Amino acid sequence: MRYTYLGPAGTFTESALLSVPGADSAERIPATSVPNALERLALGEVDAAMVPIENSVEGGVSATLDAISASEGVRIIREVLVPIRFVLVAKPGTRMEDIRTISTHTHAWAQVRGWAEETLPQVDYLPGSSTAGAAVGLLDNERPGYEAAICSPALLEYHPELQVLADNIGDNKNAVTRFVLLSRTADIPEPTGADKTTLTVPLPADHAGALTALLEQFSVRGVNLSRIESRPTGEKMGSYAFSIDADAHIYEARMRDALRGLHRVAPEIKFLGSYPRADHQSTAPSAIHSDEAFAAAHAWVESLFPNGRPAALRR
Amino acid sequence: MRYTYLGPAGTFTESALLSVPGADSAERIPATSVPNALERLALGEVDAAMVPIENSVEGGVSATLDAISASEGVRIIREVLVPIRFVLVAKPGTRMEDIRTISTHTHAWAQVRGWAEETLPQVDYLPGSSTAGAAVGLLDNERPGYEAAICSPALLEYHPELQVLADNIGDNKNAVTRFVLLSRTADIPEPTGADKTTLTVPLPADHAGALTALLEQFSVRGVNLSRIESRPTGEKMGSYAFSIDADAHIYEARMRDALRGLHRVAPEIKFLGSYPRADHQSTAPSAIHSDEAFAAAHAWVESLFPNGRPAALRR
Amino acid sequence: MRYTYLGPAGTFTESALLSVPGADSAERIPATSVPNALERLALGEVDAAMVPIENSVEGGVSATLDAISASEGVRIIREVLVPIRFVLVAKPGTRMEDIRTISTHTHAWAQVRGWAEETLPQVDYLPGSSTAGAAVGLLDNERPGYEAAICSPALLEYHPELQVLADNIGDNKNAVTRFVLLSRTADIPEPTGADKTTLTVPLPADHAGALTALLEQFSVRGVNLSRIESRPTGEKMGSYAFSIDADAHIYEARMRDALRGLHRVAPEIKFLGSYPRADHQSTAPSAIHSDEAFAAAHAWVESLFPNGRPAALRR
Amino acid sequence: MRYTYLGPAGTFTESALLSVPGADSAERIPATSVPNALERLALGEVDAAMVPIENSVEGGVSATLDAISASEGVRIIREVLVPIRFVLVAKPGTRMEDIRTISTHTHAWAQVRGWAEETLPQVDYLPGSSTAGAAVGLLDNERPGYEAAICSPALLEYHPELQVLADNIGDNKNAVTRFVLLSRTADIPEPTGADKTTLTVPLPADHAGALTALLEQFSVRGVNLSRIESRPTGEKMGSYAFSIDADAHIYEARMRDALRGLHRVAPEIKFLGSYPRADHQSTAPSAIHSDEAFAAAHAWVESLFPNGRPAALRR
Repeated sequence: MRYTYLGPAGTFTESALLSVPGADSAERIPATSVPNALERLALGEVDAAMVPIENSVEGGVSATLDAISASEGVRIIREVLVPIRFVLVAKPGTRMEDIRTISTHTHAWAQVRGWAEETLPQVDYLPGSSTAGAAVGLLDNERPGYEAAICSPALLEYHPELQVLADNIGDNKNAVTRFVLLSRTADIPEPTGADKTTLTVPLPADHAGALTALLEQFSVRGVNLSRIESRPTGEKMGSYAFSIDADAHIYEARMRDALRGLHRVAPEIKFLGSYPRADHQSTAPSAIHSDEAFAAAHAWVESLFPNGRPAALRR
Repeated sequence: MRYTYLGPAGTFTESALLSVPGADSAERIPATSVPNALERLALGEVDAAMVPIENSVEGGVSATLDAISASEGVRIIREVLVPIRFVLVAKPGTRMEDIRTISTHTHAWAQVRGWAEETLPQVDYLPGSSTAGAAVGLLDNERPGYEAAICSPALLEYHPELQVLADNIGDNKNAVTRFVLLSRTADIPEPTGADKTTLTVPLPADHAGALTALLEQFSVRGVNLSRIESRPTGEKMGSYAFSIDADAHIYEARMRDALRGLHRVAPEIKFLGSYPRADHQSTAPSAIHSDEAFAAAHAWVESLFPNGRPAALRR
Repeated sequence: MRYTYLGPAGTFTESALLSVPGADSAERIPATSVPNALERLALGEVDAAMVPIENSVEGGVSATLDAISASEGVRIIREVLVPIRFVLVAKPGTRMEDIRTISTHTHAWAQVRGWAEETLPQVDYLPGSSTAGAAVGLLDNERPGYEAAICSPALLEYHPELQVLADNIGDNKNAVTRFVLLSRTADIPEPTGADKTTLTVPLPADHAGALTALLEQFSVRGVNLSRIESRPTGEKMGSYAFSIDADAHIYEARMRDALRGLHRVAPEIKFLGSYPRADHQSTAPSAIHSDEAFAAAHAWVESLFPNGRPAALRR
Repeated sequence: MRYTYLGPAGTFTESALLSVPGADSAERIPATSVPNALERLALGEVDAAMVPIENSVEGGVSATLDAISASEGVRIIREVLVPIRFVLVAKPGTRMEDIRTISTHTHAWAQVRGWAEETLPQVDYLPGSSTAGAAVGLLDNERPGYEAAICSPALLEYHPELQVLADNIGDNKNAVTRFVLLSRTADIPEPTGADKTTLTVPLPADHAGALTALLEQFSVRGVNLSRIESRPTGEKMGSYAFSIDADAHIYEARMRDALRGLHRVAPEIKFLGSYPRADHQSTAPSAIHSDEAFAAAHAWVESLFPNGRPAALRR
């Protein structure tokens, strides 16, 4: 197996990838962006790609949601939850009072802003392309334009020469980021009883009640949603696609039935995969939405045609 | 073909039966009650039975709704709408001022009460087992206990000796009664584009929101309802079965899908037939609920399993 | 207090009336029909009227539902549940094998039909205007046209000379009939925490989804329904009014709010009273639908207008 | 009037502010971030603040949505739509082939990425704190680390010395950004018949069906939604607040009624203002949701208490 991930090495995304059995001994190619990771996957350069999809503080990772939705033939086969812990790093010898400017990824900065305003109120912020990139820049550049960076402690394994000036500086100590492992494969992971299905559902613009119609397709089959994010389709203001995690596996009849219902109201729907929940929380259906109930309902309708149905009605 | 109908001859039900092509030259056996008609049908004495099911003024015919729901193997194959016109009849020589008591069926009396109170305010009412029975009683009995009866003008063809004292005396001149033709056959009439499906759906008692859940199964598939009647199940106060006419044919995918959904929330559901609407009003679905949309949705879900689905998931 | 009730004396309705504190010593005037009882009430001849409204086996009493809905200024102030027990009575000396014809009210006949078919399969049925009327006819008429009647055991107190040939012959031993006490008063009984509100809600014909819109007005305020009956409006086939019992009192904010919502979708709505449930089952709302939650919501919206609202917006 | 806006001068936000009548001659203080702008507003340094809230391509501006939701006493009083047009600028004398690295704001980069990959496939991207900041850096710094920047053409009025290398390079030529003008005032702009109300509605975590319950509060009062964005509350994964634009004004009865309903299911709801729609699209209600319908419904419920309501029920 060859993997790519949103690099460089030492990011939270690499930590997520390393939690996948076998990944620590596999080839791991850092990608420069989420679209770049997806491109490597599409070209067959790698077998799977790990990318961040949702942060408990910052919300959906727009770049990932949009890139996955725009791609073809990509499936989520696993999710990973990584607790987020930030460290402030600098070149050896740097003192807190030397810091004029800090660099890190925008999402990371948003999560340490409270700490920064209290601890280093005079400091400026310079956006970095990644947490690891900002930190490594301290070592690589003669004059990087900043004196400190905020990154994952995982980076210290690659760059032990970095000096930690402050640890665990996130404003929300319970922050978690969710990552997904993408593959090209059409083989869907087996259901475990604690599963998710990820969908992108573009809604026709200006159709009042369209969101309610969409949600009904789930509720009428007893499928709960654990995530719903709105993303603009880019076509016009007010036109949205909803990125949804539904608490069921496509091997369950209720999920397939919901997908058929969704396809009717939103034919551009994309199925992005069914896979086990990282938190193992059971998603078992109630009796009326079980596979048995669906099978009994199907059998009953067939029994209404004891002489068989005309060929045109086989479905 | 042999028919039975809610008799005796000369009732509105016989008029409904006579509107069926060929029925005027077929054998027509009057039944003494709706359960009696259904029994003759079940025993194979007749091929079809015509019974009243709904009156535009008096509402659902409880006896019919309950008898059909309780029966097995019975299907509605046709509906007939008959405009209701009442006449006041008596023995020849009777004058309006001679009338002390009027007899007719309770439903008929309810529909002429306004006229009676205005025209014959002092008159008493005596319940009769049918409109025709009450009228014929005037001729058969020496002392029937009443001087006049209210019946259908159709009875006059059988008993021209009856004298009409007043015509078209219904309080609501637009009153219509709906009759259904029942058979044992499993062959469902072909869809016409203007069809109905009749169902009995018992709801679990005391399940708040159960009626809404039931209605959702229709609305989420774009199936309108043209009639909904509540009937007690007899088990306990507050436990209902709903008698429903849905504007779609079981040969339509949306109707079969709704039936499957209904079966899950109400496994005791009964399918009583799909048949053409008497008023020929189109029941065509909108595009997202068409057979094509259901077929496309089905094909899409299948396409998500390019390597085929495990045998257990064929449904 | 003077009362009327659906007579004659010895019916189940009189038993219901006698359960009202003080009614046994009050004046009790039998009415010949439900409309007659309502007329006596409207004319001020009596202070209250007891009428049957729902039978656990036979369903809603159409005559009562329609008469109440058509009346003005009438309020339900109490409900009474009476277990239904039927006896077969005849003139002294009559034997079972002497019976050729049985008379009783149609509703009663429907509830003993199973027993009759098994015990007296050859017997004919003659409709009677009431259970008591049929039984008394055995004594009053020389040749009533039937040999036995089915009535309430309560009639035996008035006519101990009647001979009981069979007791407790109802097909459903748990049958219960619900009666309501009507008055002209505008004073609403105090809430008890176990209350009902009765409404008649006519729906615009042919408005697909109108029933769902109606039900939503209740569910969105956490008000459960314990009864829903459809009645034709009489205007045209397919046009219904729904007779509804909602599990809340008009003194509760959620019920008043639901009434306002219902009035918007069905301006012809009629409020027929709030009164204690006969079964004392608690109807307490959940926290989000409590009076406190409504008051807090109201106060919050007012707080958004710290400078006061324009006069036009006082509501 | 003194204004602040997401600076520096020459950004799209300043263009939005300049469209406000009188703003071109008023004091305009650039803010370094959305929270900084809100802080200036809260401290009374300025009377109003213009910030971006939604991009038709990139979606909701998370920083703004979160900052507004977290603030107290802030109201949206106006919205402005600005068509987005990007230019590629550099120091005079720069040629396309000289460009190795481009800097701009992340949101801007996301909107020109397609053009960049096609036109300058070898170029690197360096995040900038704003479009204007990146462009001005070309002039201010000796060695800014990049040769070109992407910004609004509005910046050229401030820095005519910048050379435009390419114009109108956005991938989506119809891209629009929506900005809102915030104030501390409690005075709500008068309704125009084409209005919006902006809300933040935090939902209890893990409450299946909570989103549907929320949407119902709007639909049952005939209020459409033109925007719905999910934002994590930061408390735990799966806990969301919804940022919503509803097509009605708080001076309309249906909107106030919806707010009361929302407060019951989501007591932490925040009202962020009612204001005219920038596109002037009518938001007039249908008859059953008009102020008149609400007033009639209110009057009807009051009429049910002819003797007045107990003091406890005044609401």
